[in-house]
Amino acid sequence: MPELRRDPVVGYWTIISTERSRRPIEYRPPLAMEERWCPFCEGREKETGVEIDSIRRPGSDPNSPGWDVRVILSKRPLLANASAAIERFGAGVYDLMDGIGQHELIIESPRHEHDLDEMSVETIEKVIQVYIRRIHHMGSDPRFKYALLFKNHGLISGSAKDLIRHSRSQIIGLPITPKRVKEELLSTRKYYERRDRCVFCDIMRQEKQTALRIVAENEHFFAFCPYASRTPFETWILPKKHSADFAHLPPAHFKDFARMLKECLSKIRNLLDDPPYNFILHTAPFRHRKREVYWKTIEEDYHWYLQISPRLTKNAGFEWGTGIHINPTPPEEAALLLRQTVVDVE
Amino acid sequence: MPELRRDPVVGYWTIISTERSRRPIEYRPPLAMEERWCPFCEGREKETGVEIDSIRRPGSDPNSPGWDVRVILSKRPLLANASAAIERFGAGVYDLMDGIGQHELIIESPRHEHDLDEMSVETIEKVIQVYIRRIHHMGSDPRFKYALLFKNHGLISGSAKDLIRHSRSQIIGLPITPKRVKEELLSTRKYYERRDRCVFCDIMRQEKQTALRIVAENEHFFAFCPYASRTPFETWILPKKHSADFAHLPPAHFKDFARMLKECLSKIRNLLDDPPYNFILHTAPFRHRKREVYWKTIEEDYHWYLQISPRLTKNAGFEWGTGIHINPTPPEEAALLLRQTVVDVE
Repeated sequence: MPELRRDPVVGYWTIISTERSRRPIEYRPPLAMEERWCPFCEGREKETGVEIDSIRRPGSDPNSPGWDVRVILSKRPLLANASAAIERFGAGVYDLMDGIGQHELIIESPRHEHDLDEMSVETIEKVIQVYIRRIHHMGSDPRFKYALLFKNHGLISGSAKDLIRHSRSQIIGLPITPKRVKEELLSTRKYYERRDRCVFCDIMRQEKQTALRIVAENEHFFAFCPYASRTPFETWILPKKHSADFAHLPPAHFKDFARMLKECLSKIRNLLDDPPYNFILHTAPFRHRKREVYWKTIEEDYHWYLQISPRLTKNAGFEWGTGIHINPTPPEEAALLLRQTVVDVE
Repeated sequence: MPELRRDPVVGYWTIISTERSRRPIEYRPPLAMEERWCPFCEGREKETGVEIDSIRRPGSDPNSPGWDVRVILSKRPLLANASAAIERFGAGVYDLMDGIGQHELIIESPRHEHDLDEMSVETIEKVIQVYIRRIHHMGSDPRFKYALLFKNHGLISGSAKDLIRHSRSQIIGLPITPKRVKEELLSTRKYYERRDRCVFCDIMRQEKQTALRIVAENEHFFAFCPYASRTPFETWILPKKHSADFAHLPPAHFKDFARMLKECLSKIRNLLDDPPYNFILHTAPFRHRKREVYWKTIEEDYHWYLQISPRLTKNAGFEWGTGIHINPTPPEEAALLLRQTVVDVE
């Protein structure tokens, strides 16, 4: 089982991953990368382990063809999928926790050759519907404190095993609220306490006024390049109406969110020639327990958003040592270029 | 001039770098990487701009051959080298600061083909002497709050311009104490307040007892793989005697530190086939002003260390979204393999 180990100096957690264990020689990059046989395509359902959720065409059976979106457990999970209680230990100065979680893959299409932004708005709506259903499902397990939804597109993590391009996202149910999430919750609470306003609502208001960093806009969503963008062409999508929890997105807004996601990802693809990117959902943690003080006011303080980060630069010693990122493209320039990039979202 | 921009949500700073500005097409990786002509070799002193410090053989003149270690200003600085006062602004919800700092390159050898760990202990001692002199010099400028010393080895930052292997380190004088440094200072203070002991001294004591993660040891220094290592084979070098500030390292300890640095870097090279790595010095900030409360007790709370991080894995969405790193090699296994790797440090 993987271990969650806590650094005793600053308190970050690390996953010491036994499922992905590698010997020194296995870190060497392969000389040639070859795309391997894809187990995620329609007709190969037996290759992936059991289907835990799906949207299917009428009359089709689980673990067989006929699906539009399909959810399976990762075969190389970051955290082990186990029904046991999660034990927490101390070892002198160190803290340790069983690496239990739930690591799901959301296969966004039965077809291999389509990336998310190339799918129809209707298909992306189905993916959003599944995202929300999976987050609700994870939230029903009181062991989990947070569900991280993210997507790695076109990234090669250093091992040849990963080279399957079939479009998919990942959701991981975590037994801890990550430090980075806590920081956002605490900061937004402090902002609210001082001003009785949500910081994200304030940011959106100012971005609309200056119009310097807007990428796209529709009835329910707003996309812009953030003022202190850490990566070139970083783009955030926010709901215009204040809401702390993505899982509460009303179904009537799914279509607008799908269109906005398609629009932003298509602009990035066209402008930057299909770069690698991550997107990460920032949303409220599960609120099973009432111990943490910030949960009391989270609905007012926090505002969910999707962060899209093209991965065009690499971090080196300076970023590691300081946490300060270096961005060679001012977000005003990035947003202008993205605005000017015409895409078809219908 | 670059801008330092502050994120209004969590408060991280980003450098929007005008000196390194890139258009979208310039992010595409070059098809073939070629090592370019090296301006850092002995005999090419005119190519690099003025020498601001050096250790020279008797009778040689600045900006000419005859040096052992040489310091110049970066030609593509992360922060501008300017004598002006550093202006701070607000712009609605946003905070902004002039991107003024001092970005120095320390060329560790007149010879192109030697990496730091391949140099003699005596040469590495000279490099350490220069590190300390440069940090003291930056500390004499009251505009700077922190000097970050780091080294990027074998990394390609995405642009062909960077492919010069000549061994060098970098020191950047910063007008802010980075968030990551503040977190360490605040956490170590809290630990001390509760226990009247330094957390790093406690860690060292426990690591010596369990002997699970020791990499190397000599009279004055201790090296081990940290319990919650974020990267495979991450190694920390600490002074055995409690000390918050690297710049106070007594000259009598330079030789031992040089030997320990050479030993750790050689082990990493031999075991992992000369992998890319960063090293980063974690040390106390300058203490010109007495406003920040943690400065009062910093000498007792904090303990400097050098963090060496081989860059064998790449971060993707999960690490970005959570701050939780995934390490596929347990530090016990990494330390065992590093201990078993025999190197010659004389």
